[in-house]
Amino acid sequence: MKRTIVLASHHRLAEGLKDTLDFISGGGQDIVTLAAYLDNQPVEKQVDEVMTAFPADRDVVVLTDMTAGSVNQKFFKYRTRPHTHIISGMNLPLALGVAMEPADQYISDARIDALIQEAKDAIVNVNEIQVEEDDDDE
Amino acid sequence: MKRTIVLASHHRLAEGLKDTLDFISGGGQDIVTLAAYLDNQPVEKQVDEVMTAFPADRDVVVLTDMTAGSVNQKFFKYRTRPHTHIISGMNLPLALGVAMEPADQYISDARIDALIQEAKDAIVNVNEIQVEEDDDDE
Repeated sequence: MKRTIVLASHHRLAEGLKDTLDFISGGGQDIVTLAAYLDNQPVEKQVDEVMTAFPADRDVVVLTDMTAGSVNQKFFKYRTRPHTHIISGMNLPLALGVAMEPADQYISDARIDALIQEAKDAIVNVNEIQVEEDDDDE
Repeated sequence: MKRTIVLASHHRLAEGLKDTLDFISGGGQDIVTLAAYLDNQPVEKQVDEVMTAFPADRDVVVLTDMTAGSVNQKFFKYRTRPHTHIISGMNLPLALGVAMEPADQYISDARIDALIQEAKDAIVNVNEIQVEEDDDDE
């Protein structure tokens, strides 16, 4: 068993996210990027080429840029493929969370939901963060 | 008054997000990207150069890749600059929400919180989306 992370977006967000993810995580994950609408290739063909190339036992986690978009929609039919998770609205904390998962077992539905919750919690209004060190006031 | 969106990340996520945002929104926003650790330039210097270049009345919305990271930390001191909002854990729905805000008035704290909530809600487990069209079953 092996896991592949698919990062998919309109234009180059997926490639940029892979670049940052590799830097932060140190690399080592099997990551495929799909950047749609950069040429005249139909998105559906791009998606099918990525998804049909995997062996049946491959654990596949697809992260896409947003739900309401053709890129995400073309992956939709693959949500019933065994060992396939599709999450939209990707950010770095989500990608990092998936990348750090142990690769020797399939990711469970419950674990995916936990990673999604962590990614939501990681969207933070930094202006509202309380500074802990108040040494200057002493 | 004018608004600038700053997209900042370790490596190239910020540039990738700008590329996709421009494509989806049609462009027209004033966007600055900061890609840290691509050269030997200190991150703090990069951040200071971006943030000190703005006139005092500029509305600035900074989106960064993640809270626990040096890129975000170097922006932290600017959270008390007037008309400045800093949000970590950026994704496309968040950037798109900010980009679509009317640019003729400052974004309020309440509006920022609403945009953050929308960005959280946009991280979706696509496997769990219910298909509405059940025409095939009839």
